[in-house]
Amino acid sequence: MKECIDNCLNCFRVCEEAVSRAIESSNINTEHVKLLQACATICMTSAEFMMIESNYHYDTCGLCAKICRACAKDCENGSEAWMQECYEACTKCAYSCEGMSKMGH
Amino acid sequence: MKECIDNCLNCFRVCEEAVSRAIESSNINTEHVKLLQACATICMTSAEFMMIESNYHYDTCGLCAKICRACAKDCENGSEAWMQECYEACTKCAYSCEGMSKMGH
Amino acid sequence: MKECIDNCLNCFRVCEEAVSRAIESSNINTEHVKLLQACATICMTSAEFMMIESNYHYDTCGLCAKICRACAKDCENGSEAWMQECYEACTKCAYSCEGMSKMGH
Amino acid sequence: MKECIDNCLNCFRVCEEAVSRAIESSNINTEHVKLLQACATICMTSAEFMMIESNYHYDTCGLCAKICRACAKDCENGSEAWMQECYEACTKCAYSCEGMSKMGH
Repeated sequence: MKECIDNCLNCFRVCEEAVSRAIESSNINTEHVKLLQACATICMTSAEFMMIESNYHYDTCGLCAKICRACAKDCENGSEAWMQECYEACTKCAYSCEGMSKMGH
Repeated sequence: MKECIDNCLNCFRVCEEAVSRAIESSNINTEHVKLLQACATICMTSAEFMMIESNYHYDTCGLCAKICRACAKDCENGSEAWMQECYEACTKCAYSCEGMSKMGH
Repeated sequence: MKECIDNCLNCFRVCEEAVSRAIESSNINTEHVKLLQACATICMTSAEFMMIESNYHYDTCGLCAKICRACAKDCENGSEAWMQECYEACTKCAYSCEGMSKMGH
Repeated sequence: MKECIDNCLNCFRVCEEAVSRAIESSNINTEHVKLLQACATICMTSAEFMMIESNYHYDTCGLCAKICRACAKDCENGSEAWMQECYEACTKCAYSCEGMSKMGH
């Protein structure tokens, strides 16, 4: 679980910083910014549920994985360095959250 | 949606304050404290997803309703005033989040 | 204190929604977006410190007032409705946080 | 700045987990729990201000250092392993936040 918390906190940070990069870009995509904001928020929430050892962390991890997958897909074909970094952080976070989520079934 | 955000923010506050009351009580129930913490966190997350108008707010509202129902059930039979206040805030929040969540189906 | 928490939570919401409006506008001002984000975050933090009845709420209220004043100033001359709403919420929040902060001296 | 964000996020996590340990202990100290909660919250806020590159991060880092110092002092003489871990995380975070804060003067 410690590794999954690490991945969530890292993805939270990468997404928060990506929001700043996205806002500064000349060709702003508001839908993508919203997805980055949503991804940052659910990563933090998912990390917190694991930190307080709530039984509902299976649910938050499952939702975190779903949103991270969508965010990774949106970042995958971006040419900027921050998009590639975001793709990698989201993919890694999604993978570990999926693992956590499955333990609840 | 504005009403649902209001209910989530109110439930967030009531749960955060309930954590303080629960910790001060002589007969602390750690499982209940965890549930209050989880409920506060998901209420804030749910409110944020609506505020940023994320498409995933159907998911966060659904999960918020689920956790609020559980928290309300745990508070229902409490004799303290803060437990009754928490029961009412959670029940109201669960009801409006269920309504929001269903719109996504 | 209840009123000050209300003002902080309201200002948090108005600023979060203002970030969305600012991002959607054709003439995005990145410095203003950053200030709106900072204001939303410190309002939530200030509310939380009062909710948990931390002795440090004098400090967080003082900083919240400072940032709200700056945000209000930046919104004051905006022509859009959300900017006027943000100006009002920030001014009200700054005023009540200043009152709270002074009690600590 | 990256290192300071890392220290804040780490201290946030250690304090959040310390809250759980403190609540489970038979001899609960409510004042210490409040301080741990406040420390976790200001660490996250401080990290966020640096992530969004707000000019006010000098203020949030300064306040974070102050609260981390107080939390470290309260944990210093604790015999439990989590208290020692918290002492170390808070001391490290305070040191780097002080460094950041001074750059603003």
